[in-house]
Amino acid sequence: MKLEVVTIGTELLLGQILDTNAAELGRGLAAAGVEVVRHSSVADRPDAIRAAVAEALERTGFVITTGGLGPTRDDITKREVAALFGKALELDAAVLQSLEERFRRLGRPMPAVNRTQAEVPAGATVLPNPRGTAPGLWVEDRGRVVVMLPGVPSEMRGLLAEEVLPRLAARTAGVVVRSRSVRTTGIAESALAERVGAIEEEIAPLTLAYLPSTDGVELRVTAWSLREDDAERRLAAAVAQLRERAGEHCYGEDRTDLAAVVLDQLRARGSRLVVAESCTGGVLSARITAIPGASNVFIGGVVAYDNMVKSGTLDVRPELLDQYGAVSEQVVSAMAEGVQRQFAVDAALAITGIAGPSGGTAEKPVGTVWLAARHGAERRALKRVFPGDRNEIRARSAQAALDLLRRLLADKP
Amino acid sequence: MKLEVVTIGTELLLGQILDTNAAELGRGLAAAGVEVVRHSSVADRPDAIRAAVAEALERTGFVITTGGLGPTRDDITKREVAALFGKALELDAAVLQSLEERFRRLGRPMPAVNRTQAEVPAGATVLPNPRGTAPGLWVEDRGRVVVMLPGVPSEMRGLLAEEVLPRLAARTAGVVVRSRSVRTTGIAESALAERVGAIEEEIAPLTLAYLPSTDGVELRVTAWSLREDDAERRLAAAVAQLRERAGEHCYGEDRTDLAAVVLDQLRARGSRLVVAESCTGGVLSARITAIPGASNVFIGGVVAYDNMVKSGTLDVRPELLDQYGAVSEQVVSAMAEGVQRQFAVDAALAITGIAGPSGGTAEKPVGTVWLAARHGAERRALKRVFPGDRNEIRARSAQAALDLLRRLLADKP
Repeated sequence: MKLEVVTIGTELLLGQILDTNAAELGRGLAAAGVEVVRHSSVADRPDAIRAAVAEALERTGFVITTGGLGPTRDDITKREVAALFGKALELDAAVLQSLEERFRRLGRPMPAVNRTQAEVPAGATVLPNPRGTAPGLWVEDRGRVVVMLPGVPSEMRGLLAEEVLPRLAARTAGVVVRSRSVRTTGIAESALAERVGAIEEEIAPLTLAYLPSTDGVELRVTAWSLREDDAERRLAAAVAQLRERAGEHCYGEDRTDLAAVVLDQLRARGSRLVVAESCTGGVLSARITAIPGASNVFIGGVVAYDNMVKSGTLDVRPELLDQYGAVSEQVVSAMAEGVQRQFAVDAALAITGIAGPSGGTAEKPVGTVWLAARHGAERRALKRVFPGDRNEIRARSAQAALDLLRRLLADKP
Repeated sequence: MKLEVVTIGTELLLGQILDTNAAELGRGLAAAGVEVVRHSSVADRPDAIRAAVAEALERTGFVITTGGLGPTRDDITKREVAALFGKALELDAAVLQSLEERFRRLGRPMPAVNRTQAEVPAGATVLPNPRGTAPGLWVEDRGRVVVMLPGVPSEMRGLLAEEVLPRLAARTAGVVVRSRSVRTTGIAESALAERVGAIEEEIAPLTLAYLPSTDGVELRVTAWSLREDDAERRLAAAVAQLRERAGEHCYGEDRTDLAAVVLDQLRARGSRLVVAESCTGGVLSARITAIPGASNVFIGGVVAYDNMVKSGTLDVRPELLDQYGAVSEQVVSAMAEGVQRQFAVDAALAITGIAGPSGGTAEKPVGTVWLAARHGAERRALKRVFPGDRNEIRARSAQAALDLLRRLLADKP
């Protein structure tokens, strides 16, 4: 089964927000065996919305839209889709009632503007949205389907999982679109390609893509419209081959987060982790604590942004800071040792570097980062010079620090 | 001037990565007076790429693509666009030489796969890419233009700024597409809409959009294809009206980050800031340190994920944790006071809460967060119950903590 996604919002075309809904839809639909063959974004303009939805319907007969269902005047998706199907908008008593109840529960009067959210195209199926005020709408006529979902990500996600995917599952006749991936870090795309070699013919009809990011390079294989068991079997074989060729650079599969891998390694040893961050200023801690259940391994850390915190809280000797500078092997090692000792735990990570845009020198250019990892008395330190802007350098630093500890733990029996 | 953007990559349709390039292009082009009328994403498949680029060319005559210029086998954009224009791919000696030099500088041999990156459609203008191995390509024939940019965000961004925008500026005859926005937080979209009222007619031909996110609701006004001075004048008037109606909920304009606003407030008073985070686990520190120049105000903080860090490093009395629980007014206030005292600075923020997915109770459901702000002896604490998943709750908590300090400082003469 194939369909198109149309995300609606002038802010998307102007780049004011990232289109996370398109990505969420892509993931959820592929997992359910539905192939998104094209995604389009258009502005909150009647003619643009109508043209994009009509063209997408023409190509695939099935369109999911997001956005433009809110209570304000720029929310016009419903009207345009209704017009495309030649249907009127009608007030839905059940939707109005649930809106009124929602506001009653919140203890606030319902603003008059919200009343328009109870209007639906004649004959549409209303998809209840317990997370917000805009219900989803499923309009189907002579084999053509448009499903309209709200643009608020958490509401879209809930409606997709609870209302849309179950209905689509009934339509896909046993074939799936499914991807698996092998995640690597610490190796460049072209070097990885040389290691992997000409594997494409061997794994056909699966396709392979190299996806570089600040986390490293992901090797993604995809099975298109195969029967589920066939897809799974071929994907498992391809993943095994790719893992073997990627070797020690592979840290996991699919959506595995390196932070989760390291937490699992530490949990298995009964170790607890602390971190000391300078240039990443909390990015590493935030990465780790984004993992549900991090709290039984990660106990906390110190953001030592100012040198006063490095010497005060982390006990880095001021002479080291003076003699070698804050971005040095000596200081990063002392930070890791200091935080490990202060919190009296097995494992520690430390980062200090120059994230830019200013602060670089000829000897230590922007992107220069020192990383340290400790487990018990075992310790490693590593210098990297990362490309990219401030945010990319910070993200690459956090990933590289986690990878340093992963490799240390993997090498330690 | 109008154009379309086509981002290429199966990983985009499968939702494996966010399409940050589309957003970057939208921002950069709008600022240069170029309206992106549609953005499409297609898979790394010859027919899909060719159809999407051909249709976009048909509608606007000008297309920018990203992706599919790398050294690996899934990189086929160049071939398809060349075919669409009826041109052959030819080896470009200058590109080959610069590739070879690049690898020489890195001290590595050039993998054979990179050689294909020196092939360009006959007659194309090569846009040099000092950040990576794939140059941009500008193909123009009988009034139709396709500009191909690499998919790696930092490379795309550099080529856009240095090669594409200057060439486009020469083509836009004095009209611009320009947006301004008023950023609010601490007020719901429909309540804000009631305060703002029916302003659309007053500001026409500008358009208004309400953009809710975990940061709050952004009010965005856009001028479409007006002369620059006219657009600026109308936008400034609309922004002034919107600011007045949004009142105390407005914390800034355009891409202003609330963290930068708070850093500025503190800088003006010569105050320095520390933070103590529990459920946000580094997100607040990372938000603050994402701002270049944060280091002259923000000195650091403590991620007190485990209660042992709350009582040990932050001096929260264990009786408070036992009696009221870690998510309570008493504990958040003690965290703020403890971190302020330990680092001996004026300003402090603290957060403790339940980000989920587990850990909620009937009395303290997932999303319950206590926030505290201090400046000197002035202090505030606030409880909020946020909707959303773990990441959204953490992001909303960081924003609300910053807003608590912003309001405290704004109210303090």
